[in-house]
This record gives sequence, C-alpha cells and structure tokens, in this order.
Amino acid sequence: MNKQNITDLFGIQYPIVQGGMVWCSGWKLASAVSNNGGLGLLGAGSMHPDTLLHHIQSMKQATSKPWGVNVPLLYPQIDTIIECIIQEQVPIVFTSAGSPKTWTETLQKHGIIVVHVVSSTLFARKSEDAGVNAIVAEGFEAGGHNGKDETTTMSLLPKVCKAVQIPVIAAGGIATGSQMLAAIAMGAQGVQIGSRFAVCEESSAHDAFKTYVHNANEGDTMLCLKKLAPTRLLKNQFYTTIANMEQQGATADELRNALGKGRAKKGIFEGDVIEGELEIGQVSSLLNQREHVADIFTSIITEYNNTLRTINQQFI
Amino acid sequence: MNKQNITDLFGIQYPIVQGGMVWCSGWKLASAVSNNGGLGLLGAGSMHPDTLLHHIQSMKQATSKPWGVNVPLLYPQIDTIIECIIQEQVPIVFTSAGSPKTWTETLQKHGIIVVHVVSSTLFARKSEDAGVNAIVAEGFEAGGHNGKDETTTMSLLPKVCKAVQIPVIAAGGIATGSQMLAAIAMGAQGVQIGSRFAVCEESSAHDAFKTYVHNANEGDTMLCLKKLAPTRLLKNQFYTTIANMEQQGATADELRNALGKGRAKKGIFEGDVIEGELEIGQVSSLLNQREHVADIFTSIITEYNNTLRTINQQFI
Repeated sequence: MNKQNITDLFGIQYPIVQGGMVWCSGWKLASAVSNNGGLGLLGAGSMHPDTLLHHIQSMKQATSKPWGVNVPLLYPQIDTIIECIIQEQVPIVFTSAGSPKTWTETLQKHGIIVVHVVSSTLFARKSEDAGVNAIVAEGFEAGGHNGKDETTTMSLLPKVCKAVQIPVIAAGGIATGSQMLAAIAMGAQGVQIGSRFAVCEESSAHDAFKTYVHNANEGDTMLCLKKLAPTRLLKNQFYTTIANMEQQGATADELRNALGKGRAKKGIFEGDVIEGELEIGQVSSLLNQREHVADIFTSIITEYNNTLRTINQQFI
Repeated sequence: MNKQNITDLFGIQYPIVQGGMVWCSGWKLASAVSNNGGLGLLGAGSMHPDTLLHHIQSMKQATSKPWGVNVPLLYPQIDTIIECIIQEQVPIVFTSAGSPKTWTETLQKHGIIVVHVVSSTLFARKSEDAGVNAIVAEGFEAGGHNGKDETTTMSLLPKVCKAVQIPVIAAGGIATGSQMLAAIAMGAQGVQIGSRFAVCEESSAHDAFKTYVHNANEGDTMLCLKKLAPTRLLKNQFYTTIANMEQQGATADELRNALGKGRAKKGIFEGDVIEGELEIGQVSSLLNQREHVADIFTSIITEYNNTLRTINQQFI
C-alpha cells in the first residue's frame, strides 16, 4: 500500500512529531521541534483559551516552519478552543479523547489538517471514515491516558497500518532512532515522540519532574485509575495510595475523590513529585540525561540511519 | 556491539525460535519447526517426566536438526525433568520462571546450551552473570505468564540489548516478518514466536482453542491474576469471573481458589473455551486462519525480506 509521507502531508523535513502533552508542550518546546525539522505541537489540554492564544502567537514569532495544536476533545471549553484555533489559522490539529466526527469537517473547511489519536484498529477505521488526514496509533506503553484494550505498539501497529489507507504515525514507547526504524518497518509513515520531549530542556515541565523521570527505572510506571480512565504514571506516594485502594476494590467514586483536581498540574508543572500525577511513558527507563531538542534530533536521526545501515543487508 | 548470531549458536538456518508453550508444544510442532529451519522447543511445563521422555524420543526420530526443551523452573518434579534432559542428551534448554543460577552450570557441564527467559533488564543482567548462552527478552504482550513490571517488547528490547553482551531473542507480540524485522532493528539477534505456533496445525492444542483464538479480536486478551502471577489470557466466562472478583478487591487466596487446578489444560488441551484458562498473546488479533508450520515460515521469511527491501533506502 503506497501511503502519503507525513513529511509531504505536513511540509516538514523529518517524519517526527512531538506529542502535544499537557503541562510540557508550550511554544518553546513546539517551536524548537519545528525549527529542527519535526512537527511541534502545542498541548492545549492544559491551557485556558487565553493561554493557548498567547502560545499560538508566540509560535508564529518563534518559527516559520509547520506546527500544530493537540486538542483533547473532552476539554470543557472546546468550542472556545476550536474557535481560537480557526481564528488564528493554526495549520494542523491533532485531536484525541473523543469522536473524530465532531470537529474534523469544521476544521478541514478552514484548511486545517486534522490527525486523530487512536489506540485500536476499530477507532483507526472510524477516524478514516470521519475523514481525518492521518492517525496516530498509540500503544499501551505511552504516558498519560491510554486505551482500555491495553494493546501495545508492537501488537497494534501492523494491524492498524493494514486497516487504513491514510498515513499512520506510531506512538508509545518510541524515543530512539532504532525504535523509530522498528515502527517504520511495521508500516508506520512516522513517529510521535512524547516522553523524551516531555523531559528535555525546552519542555515547560518542572525541573523536579524532569529529574524524577530521569532517575526512574524500568517498571517504575504503571497503568492505573482504570475505573476512571486508564492512566500511565510514575510510581510515587500518590500512586501507592491509588494502587492500595485499587487492590482493595475501591469504586470509581472513591478513586475520583482520591484523584481530586489538578494532580497532573501539581506533579508535572509545579514539581510535586510526591503527591502529583506524574504522567510519563515506559520508555522513560531509557531517558537519564537532560537534553536540548536539537541534540534529540541529532541523536534520533543518527541512530536511525546507522541502524538502517547495519541491518541493510541482513536478509534471511 | 558485535554479538553472536543465534543461527550460529544453535546451528539453525533462520533466527526463529518456537516458544515451548504448555499444552501446544509436543514433538509434532517442535520437529516441524526444526525441520523448517527454526528452533523447535518441547514444552515440558505441561508434561509428566514420562511424557517428556516420549516426546524427546519422538523428536529424535522426527528431526535431525537442532531442537530443545523449555523448562519452567518452578516445575514440581524439576530434578526428574533435568535428569531426563541430561540423560537423553537434549542439546538446548530454555528456562524460565525461576533463577538462572540454579541449573545453568549443571546443564552446561553436560554440553547443553542454556537460554533464560526474562522480562526485565535486571534479570537479563543476572542471567548473563549466571553464565547463560543467550536470553529471551519477553514483553507484556506475550501470552501466559508475564513479568510484574508490564514492560512492553518495544520498551524492553533496546535497553536489554545494550545491557548484555550475549545474544538476545525478542519475544512478545511477534508473529510476522515485519515485526521480526522491527525486533532486529531494535537490537535483537532473533525472535521467539508463541501465539502463531500455538494455533497452527501441528500444535497439540485442542481445535476448539485454535478456533476461539482465530476468532478473537484486538482487546480480547487481558493480563489478570496479578495477585498470584500475572497471566495473559483470552476473555471468556472464566476471565469474567476473575475480572469481577478483582474489581471487588478479591484476595490472593480467593483468586487461587477460583483458579483451582488444571485450568490451562482444560482450556488449551481439552478445548473448554468457556471455563478454561486460554493463554495466548495480544498478537492473536492478527491470526485468523489455520496454517501449517511450513506456511508460517514461508510467510514470515517472505515478509521479512520484502519489508527489508522496502525500507532499505529510507534514510532520513
């Protein structure tokens, strides 16, 4: 199946998207990514409409390259956010956590490219039917909100790539050049990287969060809060409280009370690594040093090309 | 890092191992795999010592190629099994579910190649320290018993491959040539395939089990029984019972009672797809037709080589 390159679709140099993660993805991160040849995304999920406006305007100053906004569709003031996006002529929108049928046509009528994030082949097909330009297929290992099926990137990608004609961007567990090549081998047209950008210098996350992630080991993230919405987060005191409650069969209401409001902001943006909700992916076990976006791109591209050179003739 | 090929290590043609799965992996499956150029493994985990002896002797009749036995180290009559393996001069042993320090040296003293199955970088290093010849790094998406960390193949592989000098065989979520290439790209020297062989013609699993797996969709497996030992199995009445108990905070004892004894045999070997424990991997969503081992090899090798040809010049 000959699919469109996402470098053509978005007008970017490398098929690398930076996930528009809450509390991490302001104009500094997104513009650095776009200026280095990838697709930077603002994370609108943690922005008031006026905050988003400020970041959009800053993006326009900071880069002349393509960029976009990530919008979780369950966002309370979604109408205002969409209106702002259209008014400001944002070129690309990634949507998630909701139906792709709701806003896709409206956005595309204004010339906006729309990509929807899914965690199943079923929703990949529904997204294609809704007319999106591309999809992100995100596996279980991703940080933050996950699908109910717990399908991993390796199990999800081949099926999704065969199921749709539109480009597929792989996400979940991808931080390095070799993992990017693995995703391409399984049929993806590009990758969306979250965790590695979430803890880099240009990310607007708190230093304490970044350090905590860098010190995390394999097995330090876990998917919990499944009775509310499955969320992958780093083990800490808050996690321990939740895990104990879940072990004893706590109800959705009890968990909702324990979660309260603003835990992700507390953890990721304000740096409370003890009681905050520290959303990050499994691949964080590979991340142990502070990096700039430029170094991340150099590292990924170099490793990708070196790996391709290494396996280039390894026919069996 | 230049690592030994597993084709050299085992003396096989293709770097493809067939997982020695309980109730599926008798001499018919294992010899077919070896005769097609891979490494067939007998699944001793579901065999009485005299049953294993019978299968070993049948293997010797059925193939002149290399083959081995998979031994879960928590097996009750482990001493008898190991004695049988040594006496019968089994060339290769894969161990799992226990410490690699216990039997590795003993087996190697008898000229046996030893491989240990792990689900974490920590245990990969411990296995190398214990002197095993190679390891299998198995991710969350694999069927049957899983590690506690829930690390996926994509998140596990790159770290494990960098952490040890011995060959790494990737497992979990691998059924196709493109997935095999993905694993090679991430640093593995070969792959171990479980689910696709579990439901093929030569597998000793019950027809009803094979059909049930072929009809399964994405999201139809789930990891449960975490208070006992995390196990991935297909949704059915037994699963529903367990899931409801777990939602309400059932204790390990209550779950142990509900599980009882012989559920995996009931489901996989006797074909009770309603109350049996149907252990299979997430990749089962890709498997929907009855195949012979020979066709599986043709399919994987062709797809692997075609995929490599396709991505061969896709430098970025």
